Amino acid sequence: MTDSSKKGLDLRSSHSVGIVRPQVAAFNEPLALDCGRSLPSYELVYETYGVLNAACDNAILICHALSGDHHAAGYHAETDRKPGWWDSAIGPGKPIDTNRFFVVSLNNLGGCKGSTGPLSIDPISGKPYGPDFPIVTVRDWVQSQHRLMLRLGIAHWAAVIGGSLGGMQVLQWSTSYPEALSHAIVIAAAPKLSAQNIAFNEVARQAIITDPDFHGGRYAVQGTIPRRGLMLARMLGHITYLSDDAMRAKFGRELRAGQIQYGFDVEFQVESYLRHQGTSFVDRFDANTYLLMTKALDYFDPAHGAGDDLAVALESVKASFLVISFTSDWRFAPERSREIVRALLASGKRVSYAEIESNHGHDAFLVTIPYYHRVLAGYLALINGGGAA
Amino acid sequence: MTDSSKKGLDLRSSHSVGIVRPQVAAFNEPLALDCGRSLPSYELVYETYGVLNAACDNAILICHALSGDHHAAGYHAETDRKPGWWDSAIGPGKPIDTNRFFVVSLNNLGGCKGSTGPLSIDPISGKPYGPDFPIVTVRDWVQSQHRLMLRLGIAHWAAVIGGSLGGMQVLQWSTSYPEALSHAIVIAAAPKLSAQNIAFNEVARQAIITDPDFHGGRYAVQGTIPRRGLMLARMLGHITYLSDDAMRAKFGRELRAGQIQYGFDVEFQVESYLRHQGTSFVDRFDANTYLLMTKALDYFDPAHGAGDDLAVALESVKASFLVISFTSDWRFAPERSREIVRALLASGKRVSYAEIESNHGHDAFLVTIPYYHRVLAGYLALINGGGAA
Repeated sequence: MTDSSKKGLDLRSSHSVGIVRPQVAAFNEPLALDCGRSLPSYELVYETYGVLNAACDNAILICHALSGDHHAAGYHAETDRKPGWWDSAIGPGKPIDTNRFFVVSLNNLGGCKGSTGPLSIDPISGKPYGPDFPIVTVRDWVQSQHRLMLRLGIAHWAAVIGGSLGGMQVLQWSTSYPEALSHAIVIAAAPKLSAQNIAFNEVARQAIITDPDFHGGRYAVQGTIPRRGLMLARMLGHITYLSDDAMRAKFGRELRAGQIQYGFDVEFQVESYLRHQGTSFVDRFDANTYLLMTKALDYFDPAHGAGDDLAVALESVKASFLVISFTSDWRFAPERSREIVRALLASGKRVSYAEIESNHGHDAFLVTIPYYHRVLAGYLALINGGGAA
Repeated sequence: MTDSSKKGLDLRSSHSVGIVRPQVAAFNEPLALDCGRSLPSYELVYETYGVLNAACDNAILICHALSGDHHAAGYHAETDRKPGWWDSAIGPGKPIDTNRFFVVSLNNLGGCKGSTGPLSIDPISGKPYGPDFPIVTVRDWVQSQHRLMLRLGIAHWAAVIGGSLGGMQVLQWSTSYPEALSHAIVIAAAPKLSAQNIAFNEVARQAIITDPDFHGGRYAVQGTIPRRGLMLARMLGHITYLSDDAMRAKFGRELRAGQIQYGFDVEFQVESYLRHQGTSFVDRFDANTYLLMTKALDYFDPAHGAGDDLAVALESVKASFLVISFTSDWRFAPERSREIVRALLASGKRVSYAEIESNHGHDAFLVTIPYYHRVLAGYLALINGGGAA
C-alpha cells in the first residue's frame, strides 16, 4: 500500500511507489497440493501498489522468480539502500503504471520471506517445518494466489505478469483459471525445463544437500546453516543468469591484483563477483526454500498431461498473451519463448511476441532496457479497465 | 609400446594397439616454472604406440585434457573393460595411424596418474606435496614435454595433437618450440578462457576447497577425501561437456521411476547420469590435481604478453595448423577456434579449419564422428615422414 507521506523521500524519484508495508493474509482452509499432501493452514505475505478502482478491474498480479519475494517495488524504510526487485518496472509512470493499476505482489508458499514455508511452524508438530515442508508446484502456487485474489475482493486480473519462474506461473494461471485474467505477460520463461536446466538445478541441490551443515534439512535445530552449499548454488545460478557476452563485457579476463598471483585466492574479477554473490545470498535466503523452488521449476510441464502437446494444454486459455524474450538469455533462450508463442497460435489464441536485443542474459528481465520497457508499457496501455479509482 | 603377442585379444579389433605398458622417464635437472618456483626433479609417465622409424621423423605427441592421462590407446590388461581415452582415434588404420606413426602420450606434471604431482613425495620434505605442489602452466607442461621428447631421441614431432586443454598445449608448442614440430592439430580449444569459462572453474574450485574434508588440501594426511566437492566439480563439468541438444537427445525429461515422486531423490534420468559421473570420478581422480588443471586452463593466454594480439603472439610459429571445432560445443564454441584461425592467417601461417557438425557438445572431440575422423585422417595422410620403421 503506497504510503502517502512521502515528505522524507525527496531524494527518491517521483516515479517510486515510496514506502510500502507488507501485509499478511491468513488462510485456514486446507490447501490440497499436487504432491498428495495438504497444508492445513497458511499465510501469504504480500504488498500492493496503486489503488484498486471502483470497478475492481485494474488489478495486476506480479509472480516472482526463484529468489524473488513480495517486495517488488518501493522501499520498506527510508534507510533502505535498495528498492524492491522490480522497482525499475513498477511505479507511477513506469511500464506497470501504478497511476493506472493496482499491483499485487506476494511471496510464494514455501518461500522464506514471510509466507508459510520451511521456516514456519508446522501447526501439527509445533516445530518449524524445515525439510518436512511439502514440495509445492507452480500449480499449487497459482491455487494459493487465486485464494489471495478472492480475499482481496478481486474477481479478475487485468493482467498477470511474471519473468522466469514467474512466467511459468502466468502460464499456469491462464489454464488453471482461464476466466480470471484478461492478459498474460510471460517474460524470459520456458514451457518446461530442458535436461540441461534440470542438470544445473541438480548440481545446486547436491551442493546444498551434501553440505555437512545441511543435516538433512534440519540445520536450524542444529544451529547451523549450509553456507557452502547455498553459496555454490547461488554462484552457479549467477553463471546461468548472465550471458557469456555480458560476463565478457563486465569482467573480461581482468585480474583483480593486476597480475597473476599463482594461487587459489581470487585471481580474476569474475571470481570476486561470484564469491560475493554467493556469500551475500547465504544471509538472505533459506536453503530448504531454495531446494523447493528448484523442484517447482523442474516439475513444471503443462504439456505433460496433454500428450506432450503444448497447444492442446493451452486450449482452455482465454487470456491474450504478450511473450517477451531476450536475445542473449541462454537459461531460457528465445526459442523457448517461441515454443510458447507457436503453441498459443496453434490453439487459436491471441499472442504478441517481442524478442528484445540485450546482452544481459537471463537477468535482462530485471534490467531497465528501453525497448523492453516500451514494449511492456505499450502493451499495458492498450489494456481496458486500467485507470485509477 | 605395442605388445606383439596379441593372441589373447581375439575379442579385440585388429585396429587396437593391444596391450600397452606405461613407462617412466625421470628428470633430475630442476624445472623452473612460471610461478617462480621450480621442481628439483620429476617423473613423467608415458605410453607409446607404433614404432619410431629410422629417420625419427614419424613421431606424434598427444596432449591430454583436464581429466586425461597418458593412457590414450589400447589396454593395460586383458581384463580391462575400457581402452585408453582416445582409442577411437589412435591405432592401426585409425586416423592417428600407428602403422605409420610413433605416438607418444604422457601424463602431465601435476597429474594424478603417475607423473609427479600432488600425490608424489616432495624430495625436500619427504612428504607428499599435496597442496604445496606448485601451480603449473601450459607453458611449464610444454617445457617438460620437450625434455621428454629429447629423452626419447626425438628431435622433431611430425605433429603435436590435442583436444580442449590439450589443444592449448599444441598452441603453446608452436610458439615455445617453433622448430620442433611440423604440424599442430588443435581440436575443440580456445586461445584463452572466457569469463564464463573461468566462472565455471571457480565454482568447481570452491566446491572442492570449501568441502570440510579438503583440509586445505592436506586431506591425505587426515585420511579423508573431499568427495562431495570433487563430485560437484565433475557434475558441473559434465554439464559443460554436453550440449543442451545432446542432453535433450540423451535424457530429455525422462523420469527415472516413470512418474514424479515429489522428493529429493533422483527424479529425472539426467540427474542419475550426473550423480553417477560425479561419484565415479571421485574414485579415480585427485582433488589437488583437479584444482591445478583448472588453474592451468584459467591462466592460458598466449596473447597476454603480446598486447592482447593473438596474431602477434603467433608470429614465431613455423608449424602448419589444422584447427577443428564442433558446432554444438558451447564450452569452446567454434567461434573460439575461428579466433585462432584468423590470428594464424593474419600472421601469415598455414592453417586449415574444419567445423564439424555434431550434437555431442565439447565431448565431440572424443567421439567417433565419421567426418571428424576423415578430416583427421585426411590431414595426417599428407604429412611427410610418416611411415613405419
